[in-house]
Amino acid sequence: MSLTGPVEVVGVGLLGTSVALACRRAGLEVLLTDVSPEHLRTASGLGAGRPRVDADLPQLVVVAVPPDHLGAAVTEALIRTDAVVTDVGSVKQAPLRAVLSAGEAVDAARYVGSHPMAGSERSGPLAASAALFDGRPWAVVPHEGSRPDAIALVDELAAVCGAATVRLSPADHDRAVARTSHLPHLAAVLVAGRLADAPADHLALSGQGLRDVTRVAGSDPGLWEQIVSANDRAVLGVLGELREQLDTLIAALDSGERPGLHDVLTRGVAGTRAIPGKHGGPVRPMGAVFVAVPDHPGELARLFADAGASDVNIEDVHIDHDPARPVGLVELVVEEARAEHLLTSLESRGWVTHR
Amino acid sequence: MSLTGPVEVVGVGLLGTSVALACRRAGLEVLLTDVSPEHLRTASGLGAGRPRVDADLPQLVVVAVPPDHLGAAVTEALIRTDAVVTDVGSVKQAPLRAVLSAGEAVDAARYVGSHPMAGSERSGPLAASAALFDGRPWAVVPHEGSRPDAIALVDELAAVCGAATVRLSPADHDRAVARTSHLPHLAAVLVAGRLADAPADHLALSGQGLRDVTRVAGSDPGLWEQIVSANDRAVLGVLGELREQLDTLIAALDSGERPGLHDVLTRGVAGTRAIPGKHGGPVRPMGAVFVAVPDHPGELARLFADAGASDVNIEDVHIDHDPARPVGLVELVVEEARAEHLLTSLESRGWVTHR
Repeated sequence: MSLTGPVEVVGVGLLGTSVALACRRAGLEVLLTDVSPEHLRTASGLGAGRPRVDADLPQLVVVAVPPDHLGAAVTEALIRTDAVVTDVGSVKQAPLRAVLSAGEAVDAARYVGSHPMAGSERSGPLAASAALFDGRPWAVVPHEGSRPDAIALVDELAAVCGAATVRLSPADHDRAVARTSHLPHLAAVLVAGRLADAPADHLALSGQGLRDVTRVAGSDPGLWEQIVSANDRAVLGVLGELREQLDTLIAALDSGERPGLHDVLTRGVAGTRAIPGKHGGPVRPMGAVFVAVPDHPGELARLFADAGASDVNIEDVHIDHDPARPVGLVELVVEEARAEHLLTSLESRGWVTHR
Repeated sequence: MSLTGPVEVVGVGLLGTSVALACRRAGLEVLLTDVSPEHLRTASGLGAGRPRVDADLPQLVVVAVPPDHLGAAVTEALIRTDAVVTDVGSVKQAPLRAVLSAGEAVDAARYVGSHPMAGSERSGPLAASAALFDGRPWAVVPHEGSRPDAIALVDELAAVCGAATVRLSPADHDRAVARTSHLPHLAAVLVAGRLADAPADHLALSGQGLRDVTRVAGSDPGLWEQIVSANDRAVLGVLGELREQLDTLIAALDSGERPGLHDVLTRGVAGTRAIPGKHGGPVRPMGAVFVAVPDHPGELARLFADAGASDVNIEDVHIDHDPARPVGLVELVVEEARAEHLLTSLESRGWVTHR
């Protein structure tokens, strides 16, 4: 079997409409379903497909509804159609449990969960894009009873969306996202929560580190309430680990026991090195070059033109928000071996830089 | 009194040498002291000043040694000279305690602590730059007995270094950095520490959120051990708050109590909004435009040239590290009111974008 369509998308929010647009880009027929007639009109108007009618026979149903409604919507799709059914939710055991608990009436072999690692701080069909999944990881998560041809079809969907497939079991997936997504999110939320009532002159000392750590905590609380609730057991596991490590840290600091404190800090360094590098390859040593840039249109373009002329690939960029002056500090992250060359080259073009 | 020099810098690492270079840039005579003859030669060679001799009479001594040695070095400078003495350490009560506990032999009125909010993942004099403090906050932290003319002189030093002065008491300063710097650092360390032994296929799901949250945890554990130890009481205070909030979160999740979970998440959103915006002004609503960019030199330059031609000011940039393909996803953060215009303008120039 290969993906020839029609593909039905249930729930035309940001993710569902983006999947639909990517399928349309590949020339597939797309059928749309949503509880909101307005979202349905919007998504159709964007060229994401046409509203489904009863006579339609989809080959693949993609369920893209909020976590609280996922299990019911997947089950309904399995009962209503003969299609392969997948979903794009952030948690994979909860919808599977719903499908299996529905009993013999539901052909669970046609269900293969999946989870594209993409999103946006915006939501709704207007925020959607066929390019949303380009180059992102996409976890394809079969259960023990999933049919091989159903798995292959969901792999094809990820490929059509331009994503890179990662294969995990439902339990492994949920443990993985608890650790790599839900734990950092909740830690950021707790740190940010400690700022809400702080005096303004204390917050004047805020630096880029604080902004980096707390950035994700600004996301929609309603959605995250559903995500962590759907993965409560795995999240409680990693939160328990966090609490244990926090207690170790507090005890070491309280008793002035330096080696214990050093151990905690060193384990953190090891953790940052365990995160896969760009393009999934080994982590190369990176260096930073800081450049003072006047804060008006055109200056960043001039900087990147000069950096490009230095023939050094910029791996990452951070702009430090300057609290007092109309000058931004731009951090260019490049391969350590190329950093000195970039600095010299930029200085020769009149930029004020440092490392 | 106004700053006319000579300025003596004790400890010519990254911060000390950068202060020295900024003072030299302003035409001030700079005297250098360090326990390492090699660092002293390097800093002198960079034009940061000349080694101090016994006959020198500095007007201002800037102590820039590691936290563990700060109190002793400040006290020594007060005894050895008649100069105003400041330091650039991350914690302000610990060196003050050392000065006051030295008794009548030490003229504490000439001591005014300070703390520039700048740094780098690199260290040592070779990483220094006169531009390191440009536009950064610089906390000037007098104690109750500090002389007004001494305070004014340290304010001038911050101005010479291009920084923006923030005035705080020692106790307020230490509480402020515990909350805005030491707490997020330690939270990042604990989250990163939970990755060190995770299976590689779990880490394949790592996204930009995880990288943002854990980035600071890669910093030098030896330095951070000294920083948090020097501020142990204030840090224990905020870690206690963190533990209490973590317990609230765990209890809410364990009991399935959704309103409690929602409260924690909502407080996090409020905290991210409490962080001062760019240029210290009120936080303006920001929007993101995502652009697919081929991963080779010159493409970023082309993107920023096109963005500049759209006459939209780029407030921040994030480059998403792509695990599978030679295409980077660049997130351009701009004022929300300008985002749609930027997107349309970039698309008309052939870029694949989404919001």
